[in-house]
Amino acid sequence: MSHPRYTALAQTLPASVPFVGPEAQERARGAVFDARLGANENGFGPAASVLEAIKTNADQAWMYGEPESHDLRSAIAAHHGIALSNIVVGEGIDGLLSYLVRLLVTQGDHVVTSDGAYPTFNYHVAGFGGTLHKVPYNADHEDPEALLAKAREVGAKLIYLANPDNPMGTWHKGTTLEEMAAKLPDGCLLLLDEAYIDLAPADAIPDLAIEHPGVIRMRTFSKGYGLAGMRVGYALGAPELITAFEKIRNHFGMNRLAQIAALAALKDQAGLREIQKQVETSKQRLAQIAADNSLHGLPSATNFVAIDCGADGEFARAVLASMIDQGIFVRMPFVAPQDRCIRISCGPEREMDLVAHALPVALKAARGA
Amino acid sequence: MSHPRYTALAQTLPASVPFVGPEAQERARGAVFDARLGANENGFGPAASVLEAIKTNADQAWMYGEPESHDLRSAIAAHHGIALSNIVVGEGIDGLLSYLVRLLVTQGDHVVTSDGAYPTFNYHVAGFGGTLHKVPYNADHEDPEALLAKAREVGAKLIYLANPDNPMGTWHKGTTLEEMAAKLPDGCLLLLDEAYIDLAPADAIPDLAIEHPGVIRMRTFSKGYGLAGMRVGYALGAPELITAFEKIRNHFGMNRLAQIAALAALKDQAGLREIQKQVETSKQRLAQIAADNSLHGLPSATNFVAIDCGADGEFARAVLASMIDQGIFVRMPFVAPQDRCIRISCGPEREMDLVAHALPVALKAARGA
Repeated sequence: MSHPRYTALAQTLPASVPFVGPEAQERARGAVFDARLGANENGFGPAASVLEAIKTNADQAWMYGEPESHDLRSAIAAHHGIALSNIVVGEGIDGLLSYLVRLLVTQGDHVVTSDGAYPTFNYHVAGFGGTLHKVPYNADHEDPEALLAKAREVGAKLIYLANPDNPMGTWHKGTTLEEMAAKLPDGCLLLLDEAYIDLAPADAIPDLAIEHPGVIRMRTFSKGYGLAGMRVGYALGAPELITAFEKIRNHFGMNRLAQIAALAALKDQAGLREIQKQVETSKQRLAQIAADNSLHGLPSATNFVAIDCGADGEFARAVLASMIDQGIFVRMPFVAPQDRCIRISCGPEREMDLVAHALPVALKAARGA
Repeated sequence: MSHPRYTALAQTLPASVPFVGPEAQERARGAVFDARLGANENGFGPAASVLEAIKTNADQAWMYGEPESHDLRSAIAAHHGIALSNIVVGEGIDGLLSYLVRLLVTQGDHVVTSDGAYPTFNYHVAGFGGTLHKVPYNADHEDPEALLAKAREVGAKLIYLANPDNPMGTWHKGTTLEEMAAKLPDGCLLLLDEAYIDLAPADAIPDLAIEHPGVIRMRTFSKGYGLAGMRVGYALGAPELITAFEKIRNHFGMNRLAQIAALAALKDQAGLREIQKQVETSKQRLAQIAADNSLHGLPSATNFVAIDCGADGEFARAVLASMIDQGIFVRMPFVAPQDRCIRISCGPEREMDLVAHALPVALKAARGA
């Protein structure tokens, strides 16, 4: 009987998943969550115009998506004042991360990230056989100098940095990233994950030449635009690098309604501003809920707040477990000392009320445990 | 200034695309097509219940898709009478092809397919550094014996066979594939692409044990169910092989509305039967249009008909060019002698009328050329 022969690399990989989904947790606990605040989805979005575009164009579902995402890329180009050749659209930032890692990283190659940063990036690096080096956060911020130093030390091909950061919500000023880009070692690409940039202060956006050959930036419609379920991301960079994606990407991988929804979202900047306001209100509410419980909510440039539970990781995990038990889907950082926090996504008032009710119960449970 | 360092493999790959989309052709010709019949999309689908499900659930677009596609896989399991562990859902068959090739194929590995079969499969094999070996079609059919012989000769890890075939529309009986599966060389996996199986006669479906370790089957909601734009495919196989996808797949890659649409489509088998009837009527019409022009439409177990233009590839390319000029998006096989045909997708009566009008004009133009 014939059996498949996997590659040597595939044989070494574990069957793993960067995150367990809330639905799997719901199946395990035998009840749905009352509030879905664990994946930094955006319950305020998408804008009404975007929902309308999806519904109106549902009858296009029989047609493949346009493989060049031409209309969407044209709108992105106009939005950013750049050229089509600077933009590749992909199946969310997750999909683009996979493509980028595949272009650059194979066994024997080195990659640098922060310890506790985005696990899906790490998953892709491992999946293509790269060696991952992690540097600690510095005062709950990703640490550009430490990332650069480690990249120099190991001869890294790629540095991952998210600004604003997930899971802490902290951010660097754009000028800090400009300085970082100027100091990149030869042959090292800075991957700047700007998933949350639509929710960040304007001065978090670095003024980097789009033609900078050492930087690629990734954006998404999942966060500010509230379209996580549609899976649309894009990367911005120099044409040579952007063209390289054409060698390997799934040209017919984009969902047609996703392309339509993203285009509608980009065109509705008033809708985005409305979402931004709602997120801001929700962030203030989360900070207040933290304060009401004598806890500190970290300042956030994202649509979530990391709440410092005031003790160690074990304590925060107990708080988290109680929140889950109470029907509130939340997550928390994986790595100490950031794992003293739980991370709660912004959401509508009803969900915030549930958090306000559940958090003191959770704290009491954790303290009694 | 830092420049990215691509892998040795990435440096050798061309920036290529398996297919140019119809929209790019429309931009080039400065006019939209009157009929979209080139990509075997299904203009009869999806069923009304599926469109309704998309519209009703559009407001779920802010939530990530469920990473395990649990509900959809459960429905697929019930539909086929198999277990959840036999099923992986992915971003269309294209996405699943990429994952499968990545699991099995690296530089130095050999893969066998038919010369003129699905280019996107070839793209993925090249993209992971595999060496592709092609055997000719036999009387417009993929040739199981030739594929097996070549696989034995080169020590192939993987054989690709589509049943029914694209681009010819021909098919083998399931029993032929059962015999093929029994004769696989050690360590060679048969990838059976059943994208069109929902439109094929029942006896085209092989009776293969789902636990057969040497076979993986791929299905899609793009063809029979008319959801090409939603990008939902699935693979069926032994649990060991299916589990291997967990090592590398993009766990959060599925569009949430796509999962919802596919589930609705699977549940509406009456809707599928209605689409099948419409496809059958359209196929008969295409055969009649061919006959009206003294041409032969090949019998087809798909939602398209390859029409033998009665001469060589040069002639068929001239016919195709005129069809395109007349606003009819159609495609044709790439390889002789199959390239004597043009390939026209089934579609509603209006589109068929346009074909009936355009084909004699195209033949006249080609004969006069």
